Amino acid sequence: MQASIPSGTRDFGPAQAQKRKHIFNTLEQVFILHGYQPIETPAMENLATLAGKYGDEGDQLLYKILNSRLNESKKADEVKAEFELMMKGKSFTPGLTERALRYDLTVPFARFVAMNHNNLPMPFKRYQIQPVWRADRPQKGRYREFYQCDVDVVGSNTIYNEAELVSIYDMAFKKLGLQNYIIKINHRKLLQAIASYIDADDKFIDLTIAIDKLDKIGMDGVSIELTKRGFEETQIAKVLQIFAITGSAAEKLNQINTIIDNHLIKSACDELLKLITLSNNSNLQIDFTLARGLNYYTGCIFEVVSTDPNCTFSGSLSGGGRYDNLTGIFGVPYISGVGISFGADRIYDVMEELNLFPESIIQNNSILICGMDDESVQTGFELQNILIQNNIICELYPEPAKTKKMFGYADKKGLKKVIIIGENERSGKVYTMKDMTKGEQQTVTLEQLLKLLAA
Amino acid sequence: MQASIPSGTRDFGPAQAQKRKHIFNTLEQVFILHGYQPIETPAMENLATLAGKYGDEGDQLLYKILNSRLNESKKADEVKAEFELMMKGKSFTPGLTERALRYDLTVPFARFVAMNHNNLPMPFKRYQIQPVWRADRPQKGRYREFYQCDVDVVGSNTIYNEAELVSIYDMAFKKLGLQNYIIKINHRKLLQAIASYIDADDKFIDLTIAIDKLDKIGMDGVSIELTKRGFEETQIAKVLQIFAITGSAAEKLNQINTIIDNHLIKSACDELLKLITLSNNSNLQIDFTLARGLNYYTGCIFEVVSTDPNCTFSGSLSGGGRYDNLTGIFGVPYISGVGISFGADRIYDVMEELNLFPESIIQNNSILICGMDDESVQTGFELQNILIQNNIICELYPEPAKTKKMFGYADKKGLKKVIIIGENERSGKVYTMKDMTKGEQQTVTLEQLLKLLAA
Repeated sequence: MQASIPSGTRDFGPAQAQKRKHIFNTLEQVFILHGYQPIETPAMENLATLAGKYGDEGDQLLYKILNSRLNESKKADEVKAEFELMMKGKSFTPGLTERALRYDLTVPFARFVAMNHNNLPMPFKRYQIQPVWRADRPQKGRYREFYQCDVDVVGSNTIYNEAELVSIYDMAFKKLGLQNYIIKINHRKLLQAIASYIDADDKFIDLTIAIDKLDKIGMDGVSIELTKRGFEETQIAKVLQIFAITGSAAEKLNQINTIIDNHLIKSACDELLKLITLSNNSNLQIDFTLARGLNYYTGCIFEVVSTDPNCTFSGSLSGGGRYDNLTGIFGVPYISGVGISFGADRIYDVMEELNLFPESIIQNNSILICGMDDESVQTGFELQNILIQNNIICELYPEPAKTKKMFGYADKKGLKKVIIIGENERSGKVYTMKDMTKGEQQTVTLEQLLKLLAA
Repeated sequence: MQASIPSGTRDFGPAQAQKRKHIFNTLEQVFILHGYQPIETPAMENLATLAGKYGDEGDQLLYKILNSRLNESKKADEVKAEFELMMKGKSFTPGLTERALRYDLTVPFARFVAMNHNNLPMPFKRYQIQPVWRADRPQKGRYREFYQCDVDVVGSNTIYNEAELVSIYDMAFKKLGLQNYIIKINHRKLLQAIASYIDADDKFIDLTIAIDKLDKIGMDGVSIELTKRGFEETQIAKVLQIFAITGSAAEKLNQINTIIDNHLIKSACDELLKLITLSNNSNLQIDFTLARGLNYYTGCIFEVVSTDPNCTFSGSLSGGGRYDNLTGIFGVPYISGVGISFGADRIYDVMEELNLFPESIIQNNSILICGMDDESVQTGFELQNILIQNNIICELYPEPAKTKKMFGYADKKGLKKVIIIGENERSGKVYTMKDMTKGEQQTVTLEQLLKLLAA
């Protein structure tokens, strides 16, 4: 059998896994500094929890898990009937499949909060770093299994929460070394205000879905899409007029306020202005065209893109926003929340392209112990235990071999120091240490060796 | 809709998640010290990779993922035919499902090695900490989603590798605080020697499957099981005679050597004796009844159980062994490997029961900033940013509230220090810091505050 892995998924060897850990650890450290605590939820959720939360397209992208032991099921006829329905397009067939892999971390989090809200401190601040799965067509920067690193606060609706998330962006990207990026912000109420302004309150979702495609299809494409969705030319012209507004954040908000005059625009602009003032962050940019596809957003929305000239990836590295009632679908209404999600895999790709991983992450500090004969390997085994007890990373080449072979292993693994033990060393109770970079070697006692390696 | 999660799966709130991280981090640290490097493999594997690797029962426990967009499939007729076959018990139906969730980390690792062996340093030492899924009946200590923490070395067949794994056991359990445990060891060749000794070479698998049930059904149960599987009374008596051998490791090996005399027993006993001598570990015990269910094992096998009198869980906390040709099924023969797998969820349960989690893991060192009015919250937001820049974990209560409410939040979250900002503090450019444990409070300048919190 030829070994292979499912398309759209990836293995990560040691170098990649270590770089990924660097991203996870850096983000985690920033989240913890801001008082967030970890939670974990299961990879599988009941299909009923996930279905209908991500739009029709999202439902199609769920990985559904076949119920176990179907062939032993007493309800074989029902299962068969459900199979027929599924083949006709029915998406919810619990006799056949009642679980799916999570699609994001936000809905499972809302489900968690709904189940535990009585025991949680409110506001509840959590971070969560786990993989999600989407049965999407694989392409550059898009994988079927990828990690999200989410940080959310629920149970408070003040703009200080959003401002804290901007602080987290600032610190996280600084620590990761990403200097050139924009945090686009917008407000779902502002988009609602636009819908209202063009007399299309009832077509708000259509409007946001069309705008959300801007990155892919451009402004002309959005116009066509809006036409398709039944918007009239005059309505589209008004939308384009608003999207054409330029200037500083304050200027943009001023201008839209003079064009549109309804209660929604005022509250949206007030919040955006307060957020910008509090954050005082030059990477923050108001973007009226930012829509975010997911319909659970109700307030401020965020999206981060790299603006580095050497970065070929134009998609978003992170996104998020406020949702006022996500737990409502799980029977616990009125818990407002806001959160952002870092796309670790995309951040990885960009950091790799921009060469941002620090040397220290990739370096291998392990020391290789080589025994030239059986007895020396045994001496090496004893030495390994002593070194490890002294907190020195080290490994034993587990059999006697030619130095060329053992040094080749050290080279391939990037090991910088090798300890050689042979008959001479054993009889003299000493060790020969070779610096693989300099090519120098010296013979030392155990005491000297420990001193040398501790330095 | 009532929120719920699939049976056999679990959410982990902050306290649990932090304790779990403590286990993962401790194990990882031990693995790294011994020169192992991380890899990650995808949650989904091609069904062909997993099917048939875990015995018939294992195949039944695989979580299979339904192929996407089946209803749009052009091969609807084929899919329907496969569905019929599946309902009749056929387990491999690629038109319907061609991926499954991984069942352990060993087979995906073997698949990874088979795909990458030309680029890996050999011996290749890797650790891997990821969840696995089994559609098993949930019960105490048995979950449908659980973490395995695996450490394996492939490409070397000397006993030093096994000895290193024993060192890892020793250090890992010491660091986790688990003092009372046994590492049972046995050798698959010794079991083969027993099969040969009772003239049942052809029934080796039957023998190991029966013995493997010893923990669940007792020695009488094993006798019955062996009878069912066609062993004769005299054969069973001989097996029981061997299982009745007592004494020190050396004595046990001596005795079995006098009873059985074939080439297998000698090589098994030599390896076990060398391992015991090298390891010099009083927790190591030879157990001739240890079989390990999985048929890919070919050499030394391990299993760890807690012997703490206060521990109610009797199942294994870790297991593993040597496999001589696991990559062979993926077209790359003759790469011998050996590894052990820590069951993090079971270790968690035992540590919880024995109260082994250190206070420092659970403690919350975050500082809460409370503003008594709108303007003070804003001052608090600025203070938060300053403290965080100084690496002090802290959070802002994101709105003005009654002190009772804010202190209640601090209490619920276990926060020990609260900083209060009101009109007086603002006008005096000072902060009031309250020690929640002692109930004392003092008013300090920013400079004093930073000094106080850095201490």
